[in-house]
Amino acid sequence: MAGILDRINQPNDIKEVSPAQYNRLAKEIRHFLLHRVSEHGGHLASNLGAVELTMALHLFLDFPKDKLIWDVGHQAYVHKILTGRREGFHTLREYQGMSGFPKRKESECDAFDTGHSSTSLSIANGLVTARQLSGGDEKIVAVIGDGALSGGMAMEALNNVGKLHSNLIIVLNDNNMSISENVGGMANYLAKIRSNTAYTGFKDGLEDVLSKFPIGETIAKKLKQSKNSLKHLFIGGMYFEDLGITYIGPIDGHDIEQITRALETASKMPKAVLVHVVTKKGKGYGPAEQDPGRFHGIEPFALKTGEILRPSEGVSYTKMFSDTMLELGEQNKKIVGITAAMPTGTGLTEFAKKYPERFFDVGIAEEHAVTFAAGMAAGGYHPVVAVYSTFLQRAYDQILHDVCIGNLPVTFAVDRAGIVGKDGETHQGVFDLSYLAHIPNLTVMAPKSTVELRDMLHFAASCNYPVAVRYPRGTSEETDGLPVTEIMQGKAELLEDAGVHMAGKSVAFVAVGNTVSLAYKLKARLEAEGISVSIANARFVAPMDEECILSLAKRHDVLVTLEENVARGGFGERVSALLMEQNTEVRHVPGALSNCFIEHGGQQTLRDLYGLNEDNLYVRIREVL
Amino acid sequence: MAGILDRINQPNDIKEVSPAQYNRLAKEIRHFLLHRVSEHGGHLASNLGAVELTMALHLFLDFPKDKLIWDVGHQAYVHKILTGRREGFHTLREYQGMSGFPKRKESECDAFDTGHSSTSLSIANGLVTARQLSGGDEKIVAVIGDGALSGGMAMEALNNVGKLHSNLIIVLNDNNMSISENVGGMANYLAKIRSNTAYTGFKDGLEDVLSKFPIGETIAKKLKQSKNSLKHLFIGGMYFEDLGITYIGPIDGHDIEQITRALETASKMPKAVLVHVVTKKGKGYGPAEQDPGRFHGIEPFALKTGEILRPSEGVSYTKMFSDTMLELGEQNKKIVGITAAMPTGTGLTEFAKKYPERFFDVGIAEEHAVTFAAGMAAGGYHPVVAVYSTFLQRAYDQILHDVCIGNLPVTFAVDRAGIVGKDGETHQGVFDLSYLAHIPNLTVMAPKSTVELRDMLHFAASCNYPVAVRYPRGTSEETDGLPVTEIMQGKAELLEDAGVHMAGKSVAFVAVGNTVSLAYKLKARLEAEGISVSIANARFVAPMDEECILSLAKRHDVLVTLEENVARGGFGERVSALLMEQNTEVRHVPGALSNCFIEHGGQQTLRDLYGLNEDNLYVRIREVL
Repeated sequence: MAGILDRINQPNDIKEVSPAQYNRLAKEIRHFLLHRVSEHGGHLASNLGAVELTMALHLFLDFPKDKLIWDVGHQAYVHKILTGRREGFHTLREYQGMSGFPKRKESECDAFDTGHSSTSLSIANGLVTARQLSGGDEKIVAVIGDGALSGGMAMEALNNVGKLHSNLIIVLNDNNMSISENVGGMANYLAKIRSNTAYTGFKDGLEDVLSKFPIGETIAKKLKQSKNSLKHLFIGGMYFEDLGITYIGPIDGHDIEQITRALETASKMPKAVLVHVVTKKGKGYGPAEQDPGRFHGIEPFALKTGEILRPSEGVSYTKMFSDTMLELGEQNKKIVGITAAMPTGTGLTEFAKKYPERFFDVGIAEEHAVTFAAGMAAGGYHPVVAVYSTFLQRAYDQILHDVCIGNLPVTFAVDRAGIVGKDGETHQGVFDLSYLAHIPNLTVMAPKSTVELRDMLHFAASCNYPVAVRYPRGTSEETDGLPVTEIMQGKAELLEDAGVHMAGKSVAFVAVGNTVSLAYKLKARLEAEGISVSIANARFVAPMDEECILSLAKRHDVLVTLEENVARGGFGERVSALLMEQNTEVRHVPGALSNCFIEHGGQQTLRDLYGLNEDNLYVRIREVL
Repeated sequence: MAGILDRINQPNDIKEVSPAQYNRLAKEIRHFLLHRVSEHGGHLASNLGAVELTMALHLFLDFPKDKLIWDVGHQAYVHKILTGRREGFHTLREYQGMSGFPKRKESECDAFDTGHSSTSLSIANGLVTARQLSGGDEKIVAVIGDGALSGGMAMEALNNVGKLHSNLIIVLNDNNMSISENVGGMANYLAKIRSNTAYTGFKDGLEDVLSKFPIGETIAKKLKQSKNSLKHLFIGGMYFEDLGITYIGPIDGHDIEQITRALETASKMPKAVLVHVVTKKGKGYGPAEQDPGRFHGIEPFALKTGEILRPSEGVSYTKMFSDTMLELGEQNKKIVGITAAMPTGTGLTEFAKKYPERFFDVGIAEEHAVTFAAGMAAGGYHPVVAVYSTFLQRAYDQILHDVCIGNLPVTFAVDRAGIVGKDGETHQGVFDLSYLAHIPNLTVMAPKSTVELRDMLHFAASCNYPVAVRYPRGTSEETDGLPVTEIMQGKAELLEDAGVHMAGKSVAFVAVGNTVSLAYKLKARLEAEGISVSIANARFVAPMDEECILSLAKRHDVLVTLEENVARGGFGERVSALLMEQNTEVRHVPGALSNCFIEHGGQQTLRDLYGLNEDNLYVRIREVL
């Protein structure tokens, strides 16, 4: 593909391209994106929608001097292409390859590492304030989607940036979508602005119109009394103006000239300015335009049809959650489903279809989702909050303060717990056992297989107290064949019992969730060497089954805990504390992930590298035997 | 005091009072509040401001059928008086006495336990949704202050309640204050509404005015195009209307008839309605009107002068933080101070006076505060975020995701860590070691005394990575006399060394922060019995000083860890894990708080009851010796 794109090899190269060629370049970029993402998987629809916007930002800004903050960050692919990282797409999201998110260590053109939603305005507010104090003159721009704008901290930031006496450009990339369709008052409000053709996009014509005809005294007085009211007559965005932020828009987000003109205008004001840009998610690729949700984050797919190339075999945990929610909804009219903008990702779509009146998508607003659930629980319902492990971090205080102090019956279906793989640091669900299991009143569970997930969800739905069930991305083929005994509060499941009278050495595994499969692999290896092995499926991390653990500790030489969570604050430390307290003779080998942030890469690669490696654990066990 | 108040002995009694006597009753309530709070301490200014509003709500609602949610909750004193809990004020905030916050277990008229800010709208949204599903007809009202409205989750809720097709009344109790003075775009916006005398408070007169004079075609067309614009001409609150919430106001919050009329109007609409009520914080008591910040939460005081009766002796941790910030500000121009609406409570007032350009009050918005700090750190500054332990829970994800992934130099000054006492469950800072110490890249420290706090803050300010320093409410008289050696990253401080060659039994304490004083008490007792005792001040919970701990473990029979944090996920568990891993012979006695929510009461009472009791620890140590 020889073309204009070949001449874009470092930051600011785009400035050498003539305006007449912008459209061709945009086309080439889309072509490039489609080919690379269809090969490697990744975030597609948002990037296709942001091609012209990113080009305009690069024409307007000077990298790396100027600072561009991408909210969420998965829409920064074009930014990467335009800052000399085109070649990186051959390794997109692979271990040690190019990240799918902005990373400061990857390029000095990435001003901040982002990943979770709604952080960009606070970051930009900080950068602008730092610039003011230090007397710099770099431009600072935050790009935030309309979906991310519904996140509480973005609104906290909006409330603060109105005070700025220094320029901050907020680009509102409005595609009328978060990951799924947008919801709430803000979404309706933006839709209203978009559809109102009378808006001029700039604040002109006002005096013009007013001067042309006689106005009665009363209305003139009214008009004069409220400057804001006047503005409201002729421009959109009063919501933002009310907060002290100048509004410019709506702008056609696929018209580079219009965008750059708006950015230039915005940059001249010594305050926060919001440039409202309307884009189309998936732009330029039929399948993605028609179903942007499916092409939000996607596995490798056939370019021609849009079909996934290697659909995973077996039932995923998410699919099992989806199916089980249908059962629960049928059996218990008090069950309601709540998601923060991710009905598809979490598996609530089918429930939403079947029980629309009991399904609630609150938008990207995890905090509200949890406390809204607490309110519904206080009102007699049993909410199931379906959410990814790292996104639930946003609601730690709400879980503790609004759900658990009141001991309310809310079930947290915590998907993507453990290593998620290619999305990297910001998305690895490796902290949930640490931030959940110390909260009083909260029961924390993990299933060994998708089949057990079903039973655990049924169990949780029957509890009149809060329960979190955490489960990983993917399937559980290795453990699907294992029997699932009845779930009982606080009780582990003894899967393999070496018996009371063992000859020689013995090892007991207490494995949390999907690590049961790792326990079986190690069992095979140890037994081949004549070592007796027991395996318990922990099931409950809080409260943990002390009786089972101590019984195993008494009967074995080594007790190995396994968990796909960082070691600190996790299951293993609590087991250690129990064993110490009881002064047991057993040696403890705690198998967990390393206490660090874990970058992107394949799930198995990362498990191997960060502490859940079969060989490594084998060696550690042999050492203490 | 024989009067009308004596006839208010159970819910709905107020309805028997004749309107002519409302003012007298309000006066009696204020009299009662002043006497009780001046004796017991508690939240005063907000309650004095909410007397008429609460009376109006009780005239309008039917308890316990109807549901009233108090945001934050400390302004619910009058509600308690009106629901048969007048006598409870004799035990206000005492152990096993009446709570200073709404508690469901205290009265069925308390619909939800609140404590932290900005939760009420989400809770109410949940209750309304539950009512819709179950077909109930109870009224649901949330009362939220203008300060709490700046909290992100309140805005998330506002974005969601606009969708409701069922009545929800939001009372915006606007006193132009959070705890300190209000800040941000929303505050300015509300001020504008309040000051605009042209607002009628209700949506009338519009057609009236328009019909009275000829309007040119152009403007008529413009007017017609935007219904919202029209409204904006004549009423305030378009910010809320834009989100789909009907706005009524502003209403005089001390005029009971005006408030009840507005509530009646609001209750007729099948949707979310915001009633904007303007009140005066501290109303009716001169000292509190003049300095509402000081009378927000106050110790027992002299009614006549407003002076605190028993000012605490010695330098408090907060005072030491305040003084140290002045030193740091002087020494290092990169130091900035950030608070979420609590400059006075956290001790940033003096810094703000001396370095106004480097001081930032972001309003009640802990999430924004932390990520704003991350942005400033990325811009070359070293922010110190001063915050109470439980309020920082709100920003767990921001600490992890925005500060620690990027390993940015932000110092968290975590005040009110450990038992705070009389505010109860929602305010005890007993989880911070558990939710902070597992976050990669984050150093977590605790000083044994105020003197050491100073050194730790200097140390933290010199680090180019994130550091949290957690310290308790109160003073450190018992440990003030101890020497403070140089702080070194990850190193504990050995305060008392029993030596290498000990005869008889020996105990080593590794104490976190203020528990060093408890270690000294136990030392005296054990040494009197011939037991050798060493004491280490842990200083660092993360990374912990493994070398020091293992060295003590080798040389002593028992190792006691002490921390004013719940046991789960805390320092003791990590020490247990280390001792297990190293297969030491030492016995471990983990001293920590019980794994539960801890109610209100005196600090020492609660420490005694929940695990940090000298006698109890003595017995546990003797048992294992």
